[in-house]
Amino acid sequence: MKLKRMGNQTVVFSNPSVILSSYSVVGPMEGQGPLSKTFNAVWKDTINGNSSWEVAESKMLEEAMEGAINQARIAKDEIDYLLAGDLLNQIISANYAARTMGLPFIGLYGACSTMALSMSVGTMLIDGGFARQVLVGVSSHHDTAERQYRMPTEQGGQRAMSAQWTVTGAGSLVLGESGEGPRITAATIGRIVDFGEKDANNMGAAMAPAVADTILNHLHDMNRTPDDYDLIISGDLGSVGLSLSQEVLKKNGLTFNNFSDCGVLIYDKKQDVHAGASGCGCSAVVFAGHILDKIKSGEYKRVLLVGSGALHSPTSSLQGESIPGIGHAVVIEG
Amino acid sequence: MKLKRMGNQTVVFSNPSVILSSYSVVGPMEGQGPLSKTFNAVWKDTINGNSSWEVAESKMLEEAMEGAINQARIAKDEIDYLLAGDLLNQIISANYAARTMGLPFIGLYGACSTMALSMSVGTMLIDGGFARQVLVGVSSHHDTAERQYRMPTEQGGQRAMSAQWTVTGAGSLVLGESGEGPRITAATIGRIVDFGEKDANNMGAAMAPAVADTILNHLHDMNRTPDDYDLIISGDLGSVGLSLSQEVLKKNGLTFNNFSDCGVLIYDKKQDVHAGASGCGCSAVVFAGHILDKIKSGEYKRVLLVGSGALHSPTSSLQGESIPGIGHAVVIEG
Repeated sequence: MKLKRMGNQTVVFSNPSVILSSYSVVGPMEGQGPLSKTFNAVWKDTINGNSSWEVAESKMLEEAMEGAINQARIAKDEIDYLLAGDLLNQIISANYAARTMGLPFIGLYGACSTMALSMSVGTMLIDGGFARQVLVGVSSHHDTAERQYRMPTEQGGQRAMSAQWTVTGAGSLVLGESGEGPRITAATIGRIVDFGEKDANNMGAAMAPAVADTILNHLHDMNRTPDDYDLIISGDLGSVGLSLSQEVLKKNGLTFNNFSDCGVLIYDKKQDVHAGASGCGCSAVVFAGHILDKIKSGEYKRVLLVGSGALHSPTSSLQGESIPGIGHAVVIEG
Repeated sequence: MKLKRMGNQTVVFSNPSVILSSYSVVGPMEGQGPLSKTFNAVWKDTINGNSSWEVAESKMLEEAMEGAINQARIAKDEIDYLLAGDLLNQIISANYAARTMGLPFIGLYGACSTMALSMSVGTMLIDGGFARQVLVGVSSHHDTAERQYRMPTEQGGQRAMSAQWTVTGAGSLVLGESGEGPRITAATIGRIVDFGEKDANNMGAAMAPAVADTILNHLHDMNRTPDDYDLIISGDLGSVGLSLSQEVLKKNGLTFNNFSDCGVLIYDKKQDVHAGASGCGCSAVVFAGHILDKIKSGEYKRVLLVGSGALHSPTSSLQGESIPGIGHAVVIEG
C-alpha cells in the first residue's frame, strides 16, 4: 500500500472523512459569551439536576453525542467506533458516556487537544477501511476540573491573571466515509515540546511552543504557507499562550494575521476569565459551531485546527516536574 | 476502498502488522515469579534510584521503549507514531516517556486493556498506510497505583481476598509494516459492559462480563470456535474474574480449556497476592515475554489476547457508581 505520509509528521488522506454532523452543549457562562448563538444547547446551570458535577459532565457529553447522531440522521448501529476523552482522572466522563452509547470504544487522552486528536485518529480509521462512520466526542466542565486540578471550589480563591477558565461544554461530530459536508483532509500528530514551564496557572505558556512546533512542521511537511489557510486556530492557548506561540513562530521566520485561538474567542472580556478559556470542551464546541458554520457558509475554505494539550497532572506538578505540551493539527476543507 | 470489517466489532487486516521486537522491564516481585526468565530486565527495587515512584514508572516505560527500539534494530526516526498509556491520572507515565522519545504521540486510555488497545490501533495505522513502524508501550507500578487508587501505602492495611496486586512493569513492542515475526491479523474493539459491580477491590468481577462479551463477539464475527486458537488469554481478570468470565461464557454455551489469564500466570501462589495480578503492565510484560516466546517457538500458532480494563476512578467509586468494564482483543499468529 502507498504510504499516505508527507514529511515527518503529516498524513494526507486518500479518502478524507466527511463531517456529517456536529453538536455542542455548553454551560450558562459559555451561553452568555459572544458565540452564544452557535451552540446547539445551553444548560441553565452546570449541574442540570444531576447528582454531581462529574455525572453532569458525562451526561453533557452523552447529550452532545446523541445530538450529533440525530443530526447525522443515521442509526446508532451504523457507527463503528466511538472515540472520546476528557480531562477527568481515568477519563470517566467519556467512559460513562461510552457505557450509555454501547459502541466499540477507543479512549483517548490528549488533555485539551483530545478533539483534534480524535478527529485525526477517527479519520485514519475511516480512510484505512476500518469504519464507515466514527463518532468522536470530548467534554470538560469548569467545576469538575477546578476541584480536580486546583483548589476546592468552595474556597473561591484569587486566580492568577495567566489562568484560563475551563469551559463547561461537550462537542461531538459524526465522521463518515461519504456524504455531504466539510472534509478532514490531513492530520499532523504532535510531538511533546517542553520548554520547562512549571506554573500550572499558566498552561498557555506551557502549550505555546508545542503548538508552534506543530504548525511549523505541518507547513513544512505540506510545503504550504499560512496563506494557504483562511484560518489557523489553536485549541486553548488563551491570550498569554497565543502571543507566546506567535513569538516562537516569529523567531522561526513566520508571521501571519490569520492565527486565532478558540480559548480567546469563546468568552467576552467583560466575563473576567483572565487569560481566556481552556478545557477539552473549548476547541470542541468552538469548532462544532462557530468554525464549522463559517466553513459551511463558504467564508472559510480551508482551516487548520491545532488542538493544544498540557500533559501534566497535579501530582507531577507537586513533584516539581515541568508541563509537557502537545499540539495535534487537522486540516478541514469546505 | 473495501471495508476490512467482519461482523459488528471485528476488523481483519489486509496487511497485518509484524511484531518486530518486544521488551519488558519489571520490578523485583515480578522477577521472583514463575515467568522470571521471560523478562528482559528486572529492577532490584521499585524506585531504582529515582526521586519518586511516579518518576520511576515513567523511566521504566522509557527503558522498555528504548529496549524495543534497540531489539528491532531500527533508528528512532524510522518510527512514525508512539502509542502509549498507563493507569496514572492524566497518563503521566506515558506523557513523560513520550517527552523523552520525541515521537509523534497518541495517548490512549483503556486502563489495564491499554496494551491490547494500542496493538489494535497501532496495526490499524500501519494497515491503513499511515505508518511504517509504530512503537507501543504501557506501564503500571504497584506503589504509584496503590496510593492513587487505594490507601496510603504506609498504612499497610489488610487487602480483600478478591483484590489484585498491581504489576510493576512496562512492556513495549515495535510493530512494522513488513519484516520477520509474529503478526497481528485481526482486532476486536470492545464495548463497555457493566453488570453493576461497585467493589473496587473486586475488579476481576467488574471486568469479567466485558471480556466474555468481547470473546463471544469476536468468535461470532470471525465465525470461529475456541478450538481455532491455541490460547485465549485475558489481561488481568485474576482468579476471581477468570472463573466469573468462564461462567458467563458457559451460560452462552461456550466452554473451553485453553482460556487463561496473564494476571493468574505472573505470580506464584506463595507470593500471596490474593486474586492475582492487575495493571496495564501485567498483560504487557506477560505478552512481550512468555506468550511471544511460545508463538516464536511454534508452540502457539494463533493466540487471542483480550486486554481487560476497569474504567472507573476513585471519584466515581466514592460517588456510588458501578465499574464499567471493557475488553479489547487482538489475534496474534506465528
